[in-house]
Amino acid sequence: MEKREIPDIIVSRLPVYLRALRRMQAQNQQNTSSQELGEQVGISAAQIRKDLSQFGEFGKQGTGYNIVFLIGKLCEILRVEHVWNVALVGMGDMGHALARYQGFHDRGFRVAVVFDNDPAKVGMKVGEFEIQNTNEMVQAIREAGIKVAMVCVPASVAQAVTNQLVEAGVKAILNYAPISLSVPVGVKVQYLDPSIGLQRMTYYLD
Amino acid sequence: MEKREIPDIIVSRLPVYLRALRRMQAQNQQNTSSQELGEQVGISAAQIRKDLSQFGEFGKQGTGYNIVFLIGKLCEILRVEHVWNVALVGMGDMGHALARYQGFHDRGFRVAVVFDNDPAKVGMKVGEFEIQNTNEMVQAIREAGIKVAMVCVPASVAQAVTNQLVEAGVKAILNYAPISLSVPVGVKVQYLDPSIGLQRMTYYLD
Repeated sequence: MEKREIPDIIVSRLPVYLRALRRMQAQNQQNTSSQELGEQVGISAAQIRKDLSQFGEFGKQGTGYNIVFLIGKLCEILRVEHVWNVALVGMGDMGHALARYQGFHDRGFRVAVVFDNDPAKVGMKVGEFEIQNTNEMVQAIREAGIKVAMVCVPASVAQAVTNQLVEAGVKAILNYAPISLSVPVGVKVQYLDPSIGLQRMTYYLD
Repeated sequence: MEKREIPDIIVSRLPVYLRALRRMQAQNQQNTSSQELGEQVGISAAQIRKDLSQFGEFGKQGTGYNIVFLIGKLCEILRVEHVWNVALVGMGDMGHALARYQGFHDRGFRVAVVFDNDPAKVGMKVGEFEIQNTNEMVQAIREAGIKVAMVCVPASVAQAVTNQLVEAGVKAILNYAPISLSVPVGVKVQYLDPSIGLQRMTYYLD
């Protein structure tokens, strides 16, 4: 399996399949079909079969997919069979919400360190975390070997924070700041911008 | 311009162009090129020209795009030339963060009503909003003619809340609950699930 040969668009669908399978698992379901999975995620059964076939033969004619087996395979492919430590930068409202977010549980991530540049916040506790000063960020992230970060700072400082994260060795950034970030080749960015999510739908409204 | 003929993937890129153009505008820039825009958003210049050409002829050979003009056109295409009232359901951490989020400003959206099913929260103020009871939600949204909603409730109740929103006439749902939602044809859903954003990147990590 050559990673570079799989189109990004296919990779981007795998976490959606995984989320739906986990939900079936939570309801004690044993098996599923590409039809059923497709209905749950709004993607055609043929597309799902084609996507999964890029990585191997995971289903059986007649019985479909064993849910536990397919979850295991997807976790392996997405490299979330173990838990990634995540650095969280910017402890405003969104940062606080993410620090306490329950949806990382069992999905491969754990907020491990949190940072803010506001002296009034540094040293404060947020749940189990003590907010650290961003001027210690590069060293702290490098020493902890953290590769994944979430950026929840204002747009005006998001690029500067990103540059520091890259310097510290971070390779994957989930960006909540409403700005496109420049990163070197080999560093990935995903955007969670609610305005963009909304604008992608208003186009279709009457 | 026939809406149905434009692929979703093209529509999904327009808000990203718009965000980058707004940033150039904020820096008092007058004109841009598909090259410059492409570098800012990480999409090729050829793709940007092709995407925009689906909707008309917005640039000029030699001088490129007038930023104010292109912003106006994109806002018109995405239907955010006016402000949409948005209903926010679920006033946990994420709901609170969204109620106070500054990134909707100037981007076509305004949180107009907020709901929660917790009697302890109903009647409380969050910024300028008074939290309303979800059992009044269908009527309140219908009367206000609100078409856009954000769902920040736990996964276990997200589908039930969604059904109510659809009943109330909502046509576009931004979903923060970690679950795929079923909606009838004609209703759009976008997902902002941080675990999915992160999993889309860990695939590429060494």
